[in-house]
Parts: sequence; C-alpha cells; structure tokens
Amino acid sequence: MNALTQYMDGVGSAARSAAALMAAAPTAAKNQALLSLARRLRASGSALKAANAKDLAAAKAAGLKGPLLDRLKLTPDVIATVAEGCEQIAAMPDPVGEISGLKRRPSGISVGQMRVPLGVFGMIYESRPNVTIEAASLAIKSGNACILRGGSEALHSNLALAELVSAALKEAGLPPTGVQLINTTDRAAVGLLITRPEHVDVIIPRGGKSLIERISAEAKVPVIKHLDGNCHTYVDAEVDFGLALTVVINAKTQKYSPCNATESLLVHAESAPDFLPHIGAVLAEKGVEMRGCARTLALLGPLPGAKVTAATEADWSEEYLAPIISIKVVDSLNEAIAHINRYGSHHTDAILTTNHAHAMRFLREVDSASVMVNTSTRFADGFEYGLGAEIGISTDKLHARGPVGLEGLTSLKWVVLGQGEVRT
Amino acid sequence: MNALTQYMDGVGSAARSAAALMAAAPTAAKNQALLSLARRLRASGSALKAANAKDLAAAKAAGLKGPLLDRLKLTPDVIATVAEGCEQIAAMPDPVGEISGLKRRPSGISVGQMRVPLGVFGMIYESRPNVTIEAASLAIKSGNACILRGGSEALHSNLALAELVSAALKEAGLPPTGVQLINTTDRAAVGLLITRPEHVDVIIPRGGKSLIERISAEAKVPVIKHLDGNCHTYVDAEVDFGLALTVVINAKTQKYSPCNATESLLVHAESAPDFLPHIGAVLAEKGVEMRGCARTLALLGPLPGAKVTAATEADWSEEYLAPIISIKVVDSLNEAIAHINRYGSHHTDAILTTNHAHAMRFLREVDSASVMVNTSTRFADGFEYGLGAEIGISTDKLHARGPVGLEGLTSLKWVVLGQGEVRT
Repeated sequence: MNALTQYMDGVGSAARSAAALMAAAPTAAKNQALLSLARRLRASGSALKAANAKDLAAAKAAGLKGPLLDRLKLTPDVIATVAEGCEQIAAMPDPVGEISGLKRRPSGISVGQMRVPLGVFGMIYESRPNVTIEAASLAIKSGNACILRGGSEALHSNLALAELVSAALKEAGLPPTGVQLINTTDRAAVGLLITRPEHVDVIIPRGGKSLIERISAEAKVPVIKHLDGNCHTYVDAEVDFGLALTVVINAKTQKYSPCNATESLLVHAESAPDFLPHIGAVLAEKGVEMRGCARTLALLGPLPGAKVTAATEADWSEEYLAPIISIKVVDSLNEAIAHINRYGSHHTDAILTTNHAHAMRFLREVDSASVMVNTSTRFADGFEYGLGAEIGISTDKLHARGPVGLEGLTSLKWVVLGQGEVRT
Repeated sequence: MNALTQYMDGVGSAARSAAALMAAAPTAAKNQALLSLARRLRASGSALKAANAKDLAAAKAAGLKGPLLDRLKLTPDVIATVAEGCEQIAAMPDPVGEISGLKRRPSGISVGQMRVPLGVFGMIYESRPNVTIEAASLAIKSGNACILRGGSEALHSNLALAELVSAALKEAGLPPTGVQLINTTDRAAVGLLITRPEHVDVIIPRGGKSLIERISAEAKVPVIKHLDGNCHTYVDAEVDFGLALTVVINAKTQKYSPCNATESLLVHAESAPDFLPHIGAVLAEKGVEMRGCARTLALLGPLPGAKVTAATEADWSEEYLAPIISIKVVDSLNEAIAHINRYGSHHTDAILTTNHAHAMRFLREVDSASVMVNTSTRFADGFEYGLGAEIGISTDKLHARGPVGLEGLTSLKWVVLGQGEVRT
C-alpha cells in the first residue's frame, strides 16, 4: 500500500467514524459550530490573506488569469459573504430527525419516515476557496461528514479555511474530522475518493462537463451530477409580448456564464412575425449573436451590425455560456415540448404563455429538473428557491433534481412504532 | 451491429418513446389499463396454463425442483393474486402530477415540487412470472415505461403475460410498448440493458446478492439495489419480557426465507440472565440453531437436543435465511447500536424497550432503511407499510430506502410559477 492510499484510507475511516457523531449531533451543537466558523472567518482575515497570497503568486507564475484567477481570490468581500452564509444556514431549521407521514396501519403498527443524513459525501471542485466553506457549512447542518477535494491552485487557501472549520467543530463538541480537506494535489487521490463505498456514500463533483462525465464513469459510489444547462424559453402563441420581451432578455443577458441562462429561444409560429423583430433588435443592441432556423432568419429581418447566422443541428444542443442564442420557430406546443425533451439538458426550461392549459401541459411534460411559467430561467438557484444555499444543481433524475440544498444531502428512512405487534 | 444489439436498441428506443406518453397519460387511462389487465388475466387461465406448462416441462427436464420449481408455477391462485393486485393499484391515488410545497418567494415567484415518473426502468428478476405482472402494474400506475428481463426458465409464461399487458395498454389508449419483455434468454441482453443511459433511467435487479453486486458493478445507469437483509432485534435492559418473547419469536421464526426475518439477536446484559433461558427454550423447541457469544452460551444453560454453538466473527455478518440465529450479549445501548451499524446490512432493525429515550436514540442512530420499536422486523414490507405493492426493497441510501412502491418510481421536479418576474 503506497503512501497516498494509506493517507486516503485514513481520511476515509476518519470520515466514517465522524459521520456517526455528526448524524447524532444536537441541532444546538451544529449551529454553534456554524456561528463559531463565521466568527473565526471574520477574525482570520490576515491569516487567510497570507495563505491565499501563496496560491495567487503560484497561479500567476503559472500564467493563470482572468476569471480563473479572480475566483481564486479570497477577498474580504468573499470572506464576509461565506461567513454570512454560515450564519444563514445556522438560522435555518434542522432537516435531520424530522418524522413525516406517521400513519397507523391495520396491523396496529404506525409507519412514517425520518429524515437522516446520507453519511459521508465527497466533493470535488474547482479552485474556488469559497466553495470549501459552503460545502463545510452544508455538511455540518445536514449532519453529514464530508471529504473535500478542491482545485490544486487553491490548496493553501483551502487548508487555512479547513483549519478554521475543524476548530469550529471542536469548539462545538463535534468531531474535527467531520469536515476534512485532502491535503495533496496528487490527482490519484480523486480516483481513490470515488471508488470506496466503504468510505463515501455519494460524490458531488463540480466543474466542467468532461470532468463530471469522467468521474461518473469511473465512480463506484453514487454521483450527484451536474452536467450542462442547455435551458430553453418558449414563447407561446398566446402570450403577453411585453412580458415575453422582458423575461427573455433577462433569461439570456442578465449574466451569460451561469448554467441557468437561456441558451435557446423557441417561438410559436403565430407569435414569431411580431415577436422576433422586437427581440432581435434588443438582442442585437446587447451584442448577442443569433443563430436561427430558416424561418427565424426570414422573420428577424435586417439587423445592421448584428451577428445573425443559420443555426446548425449542433446549435440546438449547445450550452454557449456566452452572448450567443439559438432561435427556432415551432408550429405547436407539442413541437416545443418535443424539441426541449430531445435537445435540452433537462436542467431548466420555461414557457411564456397566457393559456392555462398550455402552462400546465408544459409543466407536466417537459422532463427537466426545473420547469417554469412566465418567469426567467435565471431563477433556478438554491437561494432563489428558498433552500438557503446549494451544494450543486443536479441534472440527474434519481434522488435529487435541480438545486440541491440541505434536504438533498439527506434521505428518508422508515420508522415503525409498535406495541408488540407481530406478523401473521 | 449484431442482431441482439439491434433488438435491444429497438426495445430501448421504443421504451423511451413510450415513456413520454406514459408520463402524460391521464389517471383514468392508467386505471383502465390496470382493470383491463386484471380482467384479461382472469379470462386467460387456459392460455397461461399452456404457456406455463412448456416452462415447467423444460424446467423439470433440466432438473429444477423444490422452491425453484414452485415459484415458476402460474397456478390459478397466483393468477388470482396478481389480478387482484392490479385492481388494488388501480384503486390507489395517482402519484404523478402532485404538486407539493408551493410557496411564494420574496422575488414574487412561487416555487414547489411536482412528482413525476422516472422515465424508463429496467427490471431483472428470477423465474417468477408473478413479478412480471407486479412490475408491469407498478410501471403503468407510476407513469413509467419499463423493460422486463425475467429468468430464462419462465420465458414462455412471461411472454404470454406480457401479451396481456400490451393488449390492456392498447385498450386504454396507451402505448403497447409501455411495458416490454425481453424475448430472448441470451444473457448478453442484460449487459446491454444495464449500460444504456439513453434507453434506461434506472435498473432494479432482484435476485441473489452476487447477481446484484455484479449488475451494480457493471451498470452505467443508476441501480436500486437490494443486497442482503441481516436484520437485528435488540432486547433492551428495560423491556416487557412477554412482549420481547413474542416479538423475537415472530421476527425469527414466522418465516425463515424473507429478507426481513431477524438473523441476529442482541440482548442487554441486564436482561440476558432472565431472557436468554426463556427465548432459548422456545427457539430450541422450534428447531432453531443458536450461535452465541461466550456470555450467551453461559446464560442459555443446558438445552437438551438443541443445536447451540459458539458464534464466529463471520456469524455477525451472516444472512442465514434459515432456522439459525446469532445471539450476542451487549453492555449498553451504545454497544447495540454500534454493533448493528457495523455488522448489519442497513435493512431493518428493531429495539424492544419500555424506555422512551432509548427508543428515540435507536430510531435516530441506527443507520438502516427501516428502524422499529417494539415490533417484528417481519413488518418491513411495502404492503404492510401501506405502499400497495413493492417493486423491491432498497438497501441503498440515495433516492429510495427500504420498500419501494409507486413513489419510489417517481422523483420530484421543481415547478416555478411567475408573472413576469426577472432576476436582478
């Protein structure tokens, strides 16, 4: 057994032991740990800055720049935000231990379900130190132990943060190993983390699609996946044009990089002649490239200075994360739903309509984690949904779909209360 | 592409197409299909008998006997039971489309969750034709399409049953390919079924532990696993001895083969001197072999004619499915919980106690799909829990734990209702 395997086995066993204590932890202790963590974050500005400076220097030397360098920065603002996040999670109700649906059965037993932590989750993420605290705080409140593997560029920052987490856990009488950070940048550690069901109950990867696909293919434990967000907004035949204009512009242009931004616009043939020239003009003004079907191109009309091209088949499946939108004219609600279910990524899709039956059919028949009526796909977010925070957004169908908060880190076990009943 | 791959691709594509129609099917149509299926089953006694006779003749020629041959039999009783099961499922509420927790958020949007089918499930099971109808009826009501792969010895029986299912679906205006049975005994079909996420959303295997482990290891789609049921009953220090005697005897001896039978008895040291001789005498009388720890052996005392041996370390992990029980004396509730979490299979475990705090700690800290107080582990069953029927019992932690009924074949997607709100 080499040193890395030995190290990972130690981390895994410690997590498994800590998980039992985290699961049984009183709500007050978990909240105390979260508030202590918030306090320690605020008090450790200079130590965190020093650790982060090492990472930043190495990253700059390695040629990192732009958004990749920005998200590595542990600024006072970032620290204030994650500290506040810990306090918000402390203020939320404890999901663990809730018993629901307890019903008496004809046999005399009462049967219900209790919400319990999953056990140990492993999280693999990019070089964003704030995620270390977000994951740690969700783990603490949900009564799980976790093993964190952050991007290697952020190792010094993450180690400094993980030390604060352990100290906060200890202060609250919880196991300091409830949250562990893998202290090596050896990539083989990931392979060991995702293949040990005896140590880890579920893996939550965050990052690029190819990374997540690779982890899913190689994992021997369940994975809560977040693949791409090819989100659609469909403008129905019966629609408030003013509302549609506002919502589509928000869904596409409020921010280009999030996974819940609309990448594809579908417009019913009856709305298209009026709607497309208007939306085209605003998109052009905002510098958004339009890739349209033949009917779209004909209806958009001349848009001097705008980049308008014919969409290829590949465009319908594309997650641009950029000022580009694909546009297609459809002849019916059926065609819109079929198009979304075929080309979409089952992330978030919206219908804009005044017709109730159309709204209800869209909600029911579009097979996506979030389905929306008359609002912006940009709302698909744990905070906007009232989850307090999110550990990720799932594009899976089992267990958790869409934004995953505290509840997604738990499961339901059956509780049966009897008075000596036996099976006959 | 060989013929089998081509066949399985056809089945998979047909299932995927059917899934959209099954998901959108009105409750009335699904119920009509179930009632039609019940009627057809009752009316097809002789055709089913003829098909089953072919299977039975081949099985006998191949040397099959005992319980393996028994469960292959499609007797009038079995047919009546599955027909009644279809009617019961028709009478249950439709889980699909239910919207829960719809709440207004500060942004103005309303956010809730809608219960929806998983899509396509694949089921791999032993040579028990009744399972074909159970799986089909649960698929229909839950709005899923399914692909069934029954044991090869039951192929003729299953094909005859599957024909009735398709006819019932057709009569109700639903796609006849909503339920498909794989019509070949080629084992390679299983490998193709479990590795195509484009065709199947989840695999539910039923059968021996080694089969399920192999399927889980090779699958490229999520698996709802049912591994072993090493269930415990723990007799606390504070306990009603009469209740404990009745419940333990039921949990162990009412039936030896089910996965929810108790395989291991834990007794607190304070109860052991009184309780063990009594339970030992009854178990001896029923012909149950006892494998005890050293203290158990000393306390059981002489039991003439009974088989009493020293338990080995391996006994604590064993699922006997036979008239054998392992017995251990423990010094505390803590030790009982730790033993169960270490050696158990996270299936079903019970505490017998009069102490409320002990009951609540056991419920919370034992990490099993079903945790019980003062009743028999034999109650861990979809029908006893009020699920109407079960497609299996999950020993997984994610998605569904314990008996999996209609709800376990669904998931929750987010629904967001707005009036033109945008993200700022």
